Amino acid sequence: METVAVLGSTGSIGTQTLDIIRHYPDKFRVELLYAKRASDLLLEQVKEFKPSVVITEDKPSTQWLKELPSTTQHFLGLEGFEYSLQKLELNKVVNAIGGIFGIAPSFVVLKKTHSLLLLANKETIIAAGDFLNPFWERIIPLDSEHNALFQLLKNLKTDQEVEKIVLTASGGPFRSLPKEELKKVSPQRALKHPRWKMGKKITVDSATLMNKGFEVIEAHYLFKIPYERIEVLIHPESIIHGMVQTIDGNLFALMSPTDMRFPIHYALFYPLREKTYLKPLDLTEVGKLTFEKPDWEKFECLKIAYEVGKKGFPYTAYLVGADEAAVELFLEGKINFLDIPKLIMEILNSLSQELKADLEAIESLVKQAYLKAQEIGSSYRKRY
Amino acid sequence: METVAVLGSTGSIGTQTLDIIRHYPDKFRVELLYAKRASDLLLEQVKEFKPSVVITEDKPSTQWLKELPSTTQHFLGLEGFEYSLQKLELNKVVNAIGGIFGIAPSFVVLKKTHSLLLLANKETIIAAGDFLNPFWERIIPLDSEHNALFQLLKNLKTDQEVEKIVLTASGGPFRSLPKEELKKVSPQRALKHPRWKMGKKITVDSATLMNKGFEVIEAHYLFKIPYERIEVLIHPESIIHGMVQTIDGNLFALMSPTDMRFPIHYALFYPLREKTYLKPLDLTEVGKLTFEKPDWEKFECLKIAYEVGKKGFPYTAYLVGADEAAVELFLEGKINFLDIPKLIMEILNSLSQELKADLEAIESLVKQAYLKAQEIGSSYRKRY
Repeated sequence: METVAVLGSTGSIGTQTLDIIRHYPDKFRVELLYAKRASDLLLEQVKEFKPSVVITEDKPSTQWLKELPSTTQHFLGLEGFEYSLQKLELNKVVNAIGGIFGIAPSFVVLKKTHSLLLLANKETIIAAGDFLNPFWERIIPLDSEHNALFQLLKNLKTDQEVEKIVLTASGGPFRSLPKEELKKVSPQRALKHPRWKMGKKITVDSATLMNKGFEVIEAHYLFKIPYERIEVLIHPESIIHGMVQTIDGNLFALMSPTDMRFPIHYALFYPLREKTYLKPLDLTEVGKLTFEKPDWEKFECLKIAYEVGKKGFPYTAYLVGADEAAVELFLEGKINFLDIPKLIMEILNSLSQELKADLEAIESLVKQAYLKAQEIGSSYRKRY
Repeated sequence: METVAVLGSTGSIGTQTLDIIRHYPDKFRVELLYAKRASDLLLEQVKEFKPSVVITEDKPSTQWLKELPSTTQHFLGLEGFEYSLQKLELNKVVNAIGGIFGIAPSFVVLKKTHSLLLLANKETIIAAGDFLNPFWERIIPLDSEHNALFQLLKNLKTDQEVEKIVLTASGGPFRSLPKEELKKVSPQRALKHPRWKMGKKITVDSATLMNKGFEVIEAHYLFKIPYERIEVLIHPESIIHGMVQTIDGNLFALMSPTDMRFPIHYALFYPLREKTYLKPLDLTEVGKLTFEKPDWEKFECLKIAYEVGKKGFPYTAYLVGADEAAVELFLEGKINFLDIPKLIMEILNSLSQELKADLEAIESLVKQAYLKAQEIGSSYRKRY
């Protein structure tokens, strides 16, 4: 019986994680659920899984608290989370909190527990990079791409046998749209992802290809591979999630249906494999898989991410902060789609000094970039 | 420096093997070449690679022998091969002899040496099956499909983690031809394979899909996996060579260009990987990969192979003998394309008894089926 915590339990990855856990009542025991709001959905989850602890960021109503099972304790926010970790023995912690707000909980898990961290929050890795060096053995990536690469690279010597790794990208909703029209796209349109059903932040990041850029940086740190040997390939069907080419010209690929439950399933049972209840891929139903090169001119965010990745920390931490604010401003209608890379570049350029930092300083750096981007971005309407 | 022998050196796989060896003069030393005829090509190869021994099946002319380098000894046939193995220390023996005539040399290598056998001759495995149990550790498959599966399965527990393996098939030249027209296809047309340039026997086997059926049996023995978990998938581009689906719904695939030098390269350097001079795959050039189910009604040979595989030895040995003769008769214009499965079934049905056999008896069993099929097939014109 594995004990599990799910952070961000009411989001897309969180609910899918619980869907899998629900199918294996003999294998997993949910000890902790963590969500921003004390919502009806969270209450339902608590009633079903009866965790020892439930954490909310916002303060719940008295009524909500009254409905909790008697065996479930409630705590508030990150401090409550940290406190409750002292009493719980957790084998695996799923961090499915989206965006920069997922960074701090990751650090808490890595520093205060011995649990495996099943990490959907890529901002953690991009912001912290090499500062995570003591912890890589405990991090299993949940991103479909990195989960695929993780499985593929497990038995290859990255430094001796691997020529390059390939991250596939659906290309997002604007793959075929001319660049001049990108300026006018609405948030609603950007939120219609052709393949994956995800949270808002990551869906916009997918439309700008910043998500893929983040994944490049994430892959660099996770798999210790230089940027020159990380390739992005547009693959609209999103069936192949990652590929590894060996120096002798063999290209290994990992496929599964466009369904996050496959990588989550793998990570929950890691290091073993367990027979799944999910319907596997039928390539004759898919019919065809296609591939094209990414359009670097149209999707500037991808280029930015490679450049920032090569510069490394503290630029990477600044990138995630700036992007978080830029996407928020776009969703609020305060900047347009092409302003996103422009604003990010402006924030990055404002950071010139090399910083000495530790894990603690990273969060404040991310927040600094976030606040700066919020402020500058809010005046874009007037300036452009 | 690895010492290598190449059996069938003037054929398609043989010349491609020497092409790779030519590029790594510091890595390999060719000690023995073996071919059917004392041809000009073989003489050229001997002059270039200066092996200690050259073997021919047929007797060479005096002139041919005179032109051999002084350091190269010539011997005749299988006996000469066996004799010369006593003096040579071979790390790797490539058996690229096509069809049933490649079986005996495989057995000699396995029984009389400690070399790794890099095996392109699938008839060896199909005919001998479980009798090869003492030798699997020394056999590296060269078939692109099995080589791919070999690489993919190396780090998976076949009995615990693998749901199924998938052999891809181009579908051959008659994939889109209606069954009623198959009766009329000429040998010339059957020899035009859409993807692979190969010897005649295997090209016709690819057109009937018997080659894929052979590969199913080969995979069964090589990877110890039941027939129910071996799938054939039509994939006309022949870029994905093999796939393995794990029980948790991950589908691992191995791709490389449609070029036998990739699997040969892997096998020659096995267990290491070496940087290749070959141009690797560019999926954006390929553009798309497509998949469809095989047409079992049209390609009876595939069905026959599964059935024979499930019955096991001695039927498998009979199958390769009968198929060898049937393909020869088809190429000679003595039977038509649809007579191939018919003749094979007739020969298989003539074998009713269960046999106790050893490695030695296998060859005579294969020959028995071959001769019987030759005789019966020769009268097809009169009978149908």
